[in-house]
Amino acid sequence: MKKNVIVGQSGGPTAVINASLYGVVNEALNRKDSFGAVFGMINGIEGFAEGRVMDMEELKRSGELELVKTTPGSYLGSCRYKLPKDLNDEVYPKLFERFKEYDIGYFFYIGGNDSMDTVSKLSRYAEMVGSDICFLGIPKTIDNDLVNTDHTPGFGSAAKYVASTVREIAVDASVYDNKKSVTIVEIMGRHAGWLTAASALARKFEGDNPVLIYLPEVAFDTERFIQDVSASLEKVSNVIVCISEGINDGKGTFICELASEVGVDTFGHKMLTGSGKYLENLIKDRLGVKVRSVELNVSQRCSSAMLSATDLQEAVDSGAYGVKCALHGESGKMIAFVRADGEEYKLSYEAKDVNEICNREKGVPAGWITKDGSDVSDEFIRYAKPLIQGEVQVPQQDGLPLFAYRK
Amino acid sequence: MKKNVIVGQSGGPTAVINASLYGVVNEALNRKDSFGAVFGMINGIEGFAEGRVMDMEELKRSGELELVKTTPGSYLGSCRYKLPKDLNDEVYPKLFERFKEYDIGYFFYIGGNDSMDTVSKLSRYAEMVGSDICFLGIPKTIDNDLVNTDHTPGFGSAAKYVASTVREIAVDASVYDNKKSVTIVEIMGRHAGWLTAASALARKFEGDNPVLIYLPEVAFDTERFIQDVSASLEKVSNVIVCISEGINDGKGTFICELASEVGVDTFGHKMLTGSGKYLENLIKDRLGVKVRSVELNVSQRCSSAMLSATDLQEAVDSGAYGVKCALHGESGKMIAFVRADGEEYKLSYEAKDVNEICNREKGVPAGWITKDGSDVSDEFIRYAKPLIQGEVQVPQQDGLPLFAYRK
Repeated sequence: MKKNVIVGQSGGPTAVINASLYGVVNEALNRKDSFGAVFGMINGIEGFAEGRVMDMEELKRSGELELVKTTPGSYLGSCRYKLPKDLNDEVYPKLFERFKEYDIGYFFYIGGNDSMDTVSKLSRYAEMVGSDICFLGIPKTIDNDLVNTDHTPGFGSAAKYVASTVREIAVDASVYDNKKSVTIVEIMGRHAGWLTAASALARKFEGDNPVLIYLPEVAFDTERFIQDVSASLEKVSNVIVCISEGINDGKGTFICELASEVGVDTFGHKMLTGSGKYLENLIKDRLGVKVRSVELNVSQRCSSAMLSATDLQEAVDSGAYGVKCALHGESGKMIAFVRADGEEYKLSYEAKDVNEICNREKGVPAGWITKDGSDVSDEFIRYAKPLIQGEVQVPQQDGLPLFAYRK
Repeated sequence: MKKNVIVGQSGGPTAVINASLYGVVNEALNRKDSFGAVFGMINGIEGFAEGRVMDMEELKRSGELELVKTTPGSYLGSCRYKLPKDLNDEVYPKLFERFKEYDIGYFFYIGGNDSMDTVSKLSRYAEMVGSDICFLGIPKTIDNDLVNTDHTPGFGSAAKYVASTVREIAVDASVYDNKKSVTIVEIMGRHAGWLTAASALARKFEGDNPVLIYLPEVAFDTERFIQDVSASLEKVSNVIVCISEGINDGKGTFICELASEVGVDTFGHKMLTGSGKYLENLIKDRLGVKVRSVELNVSQRCSSAMLSATDLQEAVDSGAYGVKCALHGESGKMIAFVRADGEEYKLSYEAKDVNEICNREKGVPAGWITKDGSDVSDEFIRYAKPLIQGEVQVPQQDGLPLFAYRK
């Protein structure tokens, strides 16, 4: 008897998490000889526990699935639900009852660290109770912080967005090139600096902006920072500084936390500003130069204007590859990205043990950060450049990108 | 004897201010029988006063001028210099000495309100001293606040950026659609709400986000706002609110100023947050719901990813039209945009008295704002929709948009 497939999305969305969904659904629906129905869980495992599922076949029939591919956000809805550590918790048999109810044989979960933890726990519980349901993880995260994979889908498009936006901000900042100024750009990444490092791709020539780049992997020294900015202003009139939101002093204190030591807002709450705003005030105070800060914010993960064709295709392919692995009975695995050695960029996929991936984080290697801690090396550029290649034409209607949504 | 042409850019840049520059330069270079050299002033009238000019012909010869057309920011550099009111000030004869030095017969200034003030003063001084130099203004501003013109170049692309980004933010916010949340999007516009109004274009269906839109043209009442948000949360799980940075209480106090009444930052300065951040804290305090604020920031005026083809072409055409007007000896005029009556969108250009345009501002008409002050009407949608139509393929290199810059 053919078993049914269920797929879900979890954690923060990316610009291509729906491309991975497309990859899973399209591949499974193309293999009717092997699979039964293809279901989507609404709001991840949390919604599934409540029996909230949808049949995905109609989406393909109506052509809407093609539109899902280039729609940012999680089409199926997401959740931030973490399964209990104790596999004897009552939630597990309840979930497996649901699997039985929908006659599920194959479970795909598209997400980051926490989602891989869900795949790990469900697959271990399945083994414990002798269930033969296959549990597979499809990676996604703009943070690019999963271990045992060259990179993660979502990172390429986010990196392309960051690099192009920083290039535009640098152009914007240089229109008053007869007056000195500093612009601080705050980029997502609390623990890993991959996305901030991608701002280096914005440079049009050697020595171009962003002149300074600070990642959370290196302890941030505010005095050294002031010196760096001051020295840069001697060389470049309009200095762009890119920082990770998670820059910290190396001893557990985020730079943004320094701001909250004094301030209290109108409502009596501790003042919460980002690291960029804090450094803006610091530069104003210490260097007296014109300064502003820009937080790139959620567009980093949801802009459809800067989709990387490479990233989008890899997201689709990794979803489809997951389905092929399920056919071979693989379980408790995540689809990892393997880059071939050599000059030319070549990627293949491999199912790797999810238990060795979940709940771990991969930062930018120390060797890819310059010794003074204020830039990234050419190794990083060589690594990141292939991931942002290619443009995607998002369907348009009435002058705006057209997105799919659940009716 | 053929006279030379000089063109400059002033004030904040837009995504298409260089398209207007292209229009002027290309048209003037195509009419070698009428014009001599074509110069660009570096950093506007301020740089010109110091004799900082460049010859534009080489740009066309090298093909770089084509790249300038789709490059955001002011290629020539900008300034915020305002000429003295007193036409007997010594700066005027000095500037006219410079005009003589470069044998200038035609002066084009691309900018907003303040730049039109420069055109006004220079043309009035010319009349006073009997100079026959033609002074013409080419409009630009994302704020769309110039009078006597249907709209201004730069607005269409900024509106397209705002609408598409708000649509993406709404998609991003709705992934946790099983939990209530509020997202406040702060949009540029200190006195005029045109750009914020453009967020209404983001709606995919009736009742879609953004559910609430507040412009500076209507007095903002925080209590009414809390009621609006609260009522909206009953209908929509994830409410998007779009506000102009310049929303105010109607008595001269900006909402962002309310935030600074208590807070002092780490450096002892008055706390400066935007209106969005203030309302974020207000909602947290009063409704206790999950809330965040997003400031769209400078990308509104410098993103090349969301260029409107209509806007870009009109920017080029208005620059070229200015050159034709100069040939007919027009001076002290700005190129205004005239929309034909009727269903179909048709635009023509007309040189209008710059003295009646400079130093004035046009807000969104009261009739285009709904009575409750929290939305715009269909009249606005009909007005704005044609301006965001059409996509522009910006040249790409290595996966990123390629921009021109002065070497």
